[in-house]
Amino acid sequence: MSTRVVNLESCFDRIHEVFSPHIVGELNGQHVKLARLEGDKVPWHTHEDEDELFLVLEGELEVQQRDSVVTLHEGELTVVPRGCEHRVIPNGHVKLLLFEPADIAHTGAVESEITREHYERLEP
Amino acid sequence: MSTRVVNLESCFDRIHEVFSPHIVGELNGQHVKLARLEGDKVPWHTHEDEDELFLVLEGELEVQQRDSVVTLHEGELTVVPRGCEHRVIPNGHVKLLLFEPADIAHTGAVESEITREHYERLEP
Repeated sequence: MSTRVVNLESCFDRIHEVFSPHIVGELNGQHVKLARLEGDKVPWHTHEDEDELFLVLEGELEVQQRDSVVTLHEGELTVVPRGCEHRVIPNGHVKLLLFEPADIAHTGAVESEITREHYERLEP
Repeated sequence: MSTRVVNLESCFDRIHEVFSPHIVGELNGQHVKLARLEGDKVPWHTHEDEDELFLVLEGELEVQQRDSVVTLHEGELTVVPRGCEHRVIPNGHVKLLLFEPADIAHTGAVESEITREHYERLEP
């Protein structure tokens, strides 16, 4: 059996679009995804049954909820609990790691120009 | 409601022991943990029902399974699937992020000098 090593930076070299989360790992029904973000395009949305983790690998990301806002810098993470309406706004270009359930809908029940029906999988 | 920002480096400033995973985040029944590793102390062990993710934030970590071995460097991750016997050997000092189910036993059914009954939780 070969064990897969995922080099985050090499993965980003293969991700060219923004707002297109790519699956790089799977465990316990959860996906590890990487995404590049740039621009204020994420609509307010809610995941009713899924908590969502954002870990900034490069850049600066504002995470807005209806009653709070935090800014994540490189090496910082936050968890948006299920049921909490939120959106994220990158300040410039951001490299982001997401951790969330495998069956999560990209922008909840909200359709927008960035909404994805499925996620690309980055194979080794 | 205040949203918690977890700065990984600041967390490591508060972790002084090696082989003592600290919980820094929780979502979907999973824990995000941080640990410092140094020395060849992790016994071979298996998690029967839990996949386990290792992401190296600093240093170099060998992840051994019975039929494979990989070395993770900074910014690299791997997933050890449930049921696969494994151990990890740091080369020097390693800062590690773990992602795994909240109820996982530290060293599976194996007792060793590093085995923990519970995990410290790093509050903000």
